[in-house]
Amino acid sequence: MTFELSKEFAVELQRAVDKQDNVFIKNTLEGVNSADITETLEEFSSEDSRYVLSLLDVEIGAEVISDLDDDTLKKFLKIYSPQEISEYIEVMDSDDAVDILNEMSTDIREEIITALSNQEKIDHILDLMRYAEDVAGGLMAKELIKANVNWTIEQTIEEIRRQGENVTQIYSVYVVDNYNTLLGKVSLRKILLAKDGTKIKDVYTDEVISVQTNEEEEEVVSVMKKYDLEAIPVINMRGKLMGRITIDDVVDVMAEQAEEERQLMSGISEDVEEDDSIWLLTRARIPWLVIGLIGSFFGAELIGQFEDQIVLIPILASFIPLITATGGNVAIQSSSMIVQSLATKSVFQDSNLKRLLKVIAVALLNGLLLSLLAFTFSYILRHNFEVSIVVATSLTCVVLLASLSGTITPIILDKLGINPAAASGPFITTANDLLGLAVYFLVAYFML
Amino acid sequence: MTFELSKEFAVELQRAVDKQDNVFIKNTLEGVNSADITETLEEFSSEDSRYVLSLLDVEIGAEVISDLDDDTLKKFLKIYSPQEISEYIEVMDSDDAVDILNEMSTDIREEIITALSNQEKIDHILDLMRYAEDVAGGLMAKELIKANVNWTIEQTIEEIRRQGENVTQIYSVYVVDNYNTLLGKVSLRKILLAKDGTKIKDVYTDEVISVQTNEEEEEVVSVMKKYDLEAIPVINMRGKLMGRITIDDVVDVMAEQAEEERQLMSGISEDVEEDDSIWLLTRARIPWLVIGLIGSFFGAELIGQFEDQIVLIPILASFIPLITATGGNVAIQSSSMIVQSLATKSVFQDSNLKRLLKVIAVALLNGLLLSLLAFTFSYILRHNFEVSIVVATSLTCVVLLASLSGTITPIILDKLGINPAAASGPFITTANDLLGLAVYFLVAYFML
Repeated sequence: MTFELSKEFAVELQRAVDKQDNVFIKNTLEGVNSADITETLEEFSSEDSRYVLSLLDVEIGAEVISDLDDDTLKKFLKIYSPQEISEYIEVMDSDDAVDILNEMSTDIREEIITALSNQEKIDHILDLMRYAEDVAGGLMAKELIKANVNWTIEQTIEEIRRQGENVTQIYSVYVVDNYNTLLGKVSLRKILLAKDGTKIKDVYTDEVISVQTNEEEEEVVSVMKKYDLEAIPVINMRGKLMGRITIDDVVDVMAEQAEEERQLMSGISEDVEEDDSIWLLTRARIPWLVIGLIGSFFGAELIGQFEDQIVLIPILASFIPLITATGGNVAIQSSSMIVQSLATKSVFQDSNLKRLLKVIAVALLNGLLLSLLAFTFSYILRHNFEVSIVVATSLTCVVLLASLSGTITPIILDKLGINPAAASGPFITTANDLLGLAVYFLVAYFML
Repeated sequence: MTFELSKEFAVELQRAVDKQDNVFIKNTLEGVNSADITETLEEFSSEDSRYVLSLLDVEIGAEVISDLDDDTLKKFLKIYSPQEISEYIEVMDSDDAVDILNEMSTDIREEIITALSNQEKIDHILDLMRYAEDVAGGLMAKELIKANVNWTIEQTIEEIRRQGENVTQIYSVYVVDNYNTLLGKVSLRKILLAKDGTKIKDVYTDEVISVQTNEEEEEVVSVMKKYDLEAIPVINMRGKLMGRITIDDVVDVMAEQAEEERQLMSGISEDVEEDDSIWLLTRARIPWLVIGLIGSFFGAELIGQFEDQIVLIPILASFIPLITATGGNVAIQSSSMIVQSLATKSVFQDSNLKRLLKVIAVALLNGLLLSLLAFTFSYILRHNFEVSIVVATSLTCVVLLASLSGTITPIILDKLGINPAAASGPFITTANDLLGLAVYFLVAYFML
């Protein structure tokens, strides 16, 4: 019943494209889900993809194009004329259309919009283009089904019939007054089961959760997640119904967030994937490595200041990695706790002072436990009481400082509008290395 | 139109609970979404929550209980009698019911099931309890609407009316034959717009994507994401319709996955949150810190072997953090690239050999660039040509080795059924510290 995408299928299709075997192409792709066609065409050259799409229904082509990943899409759009693109845009949902138009230069964008014939589509697109991509207005589509509160069920069904072709997934019909103010919603099931002649006002519910156009996408995700919604209506500041966000867009946002966080935590500075070019992968990875390197040279200078001491007591050098590694691990744990808290923020959060006191308590407990262990190990291994005391003392300080910096950095980043996950990346590690080294050698300097 | 949850609301409600002001409690919570009640009650004591819920409809109570986070739920269930729990279970969706039953000991579970009066619910629960929690069967609910392919639209609407009360969200009606084999689906919209007397067989589509009961939850997430589905039917090996998974469960799975990955990457060994107790937070954080500490002691022993050399050329000690930090950063970048690839796996992936060659190419390019920089910096700062060459040479080796270990570890973990994100955590850092130190001092030993 389900189509199994395979490498063999792609090879066969490629062969048919090479031979221009149109009948074979059309027959093989008949009934195949557009998401599978997209995945296959992402492996093809742009010219071959265009050839395949030209043989399919324009609706299927539009779905394929809206599903392409950004890299492929850009290559793809280059070989199409504005006229061709506008044919696909014509049958796309308005949110997908705007996403694609945003990839293009202003003049090509205008050419495409001018080539559109459907005035309603043009209005929708122009309206959506006013919003930033990362707010509710930028996520929403204009296509939705709404009913006036004074309509009967029959009028509403007529509207569903009329609008049905434009709206791919209907979960609820939104209910508005004469001024397009959102009043509530009514489920398709209720409409289906209602008696003839029933008025919408008698069956709709006013318990509808909505977001405003300027709400940030993170907030939209968290509202839809909290209330288990499959779609959410978007209103403007005066409560007018402007559009609708569906759960598939929110799922995409969540996947992007996870990817972004992964990149930030590992110090990858661009949106790259394993199959990108060697050059692109290097470019994405080198910046944070260089920053780390520079940080380490500061560390080297710092250690250099204590060279005489190292010559006198060379065991001191042995514990350098212990101090830096533990500091790094503690800082990353701390910042990841905060990132998690920020991701699931609740109105019932403790005050900042209370949170900080707790961080200090946990850090002291962790620090003392680790120091006890470190003292025991180092004394057993080296039989040097003084150095063991230096290691234990500086380790407690380092754990405490790393906890504080790991806690405070993401909070500050978040306040500055920067993704707090960046705090769990190489930045924190590098800064903590320096901090740890300074503490360690200062303690050694004063105690030995 | 939407209710704004606030701290003040919680305080007022708490006051009403203390005064047992039932009228106030009922009035304030009238029409409040159950998700908001859940969030408020998570701040209350179990006894107070129970008191509030006893005043509300059992349906609302059931929703609140199914939404509680695991910690609160456990505390909560302790103070309820099996009889009370069974009243809530009676009105819950089967998947939520099973999640709660799984939290309890076998004998209490049996007591609760025995107390249920609805035989269909009992059958559903017993059926679902056969599946592991992390496969499609463990995610699905038994509640769904299905129609026989030979039915008319009127019969189907009658079924929707009959089943409607049990099924909270209807997206599609699933179409089956006389033997319950899944044949396809028909949208509510099509049913709404169909003429009287139409047969299901004339309006349903056989293009329905389904998953099998034993499919892993990651696979379910990726299928629903790829095809933008809001619900997916679950079939057994013989194609019989067994249940349905809705997108809200998938969204929860995605959020859990992100949280798990964050914890693995930062070396937190338990599912803790910032507001857990100091003891719990320490317990979750200390294991990986201790493992890192033990690793660092191996490192200390390793450096100890080269003490004579450090006494002769104390600058060598300065570059220890440079080697370990760069190795760690490179390894985490590499493993995070693999984790991302594994998360978005495609059938068109390159062969392992080709992937490995690419990793080596990127590593060499990164390694050479960094070494060139490191050589320049260290020569400018220290004017020691030999040591600068040692640093540059060992850095290239370390970047290469760290790339390889960072690439191979997550692949091996994934093959072993362990979450590959664990490779981006303290394990890789600790292992790479040791590897880096060994390379650095061996290069120094042979070159100086």
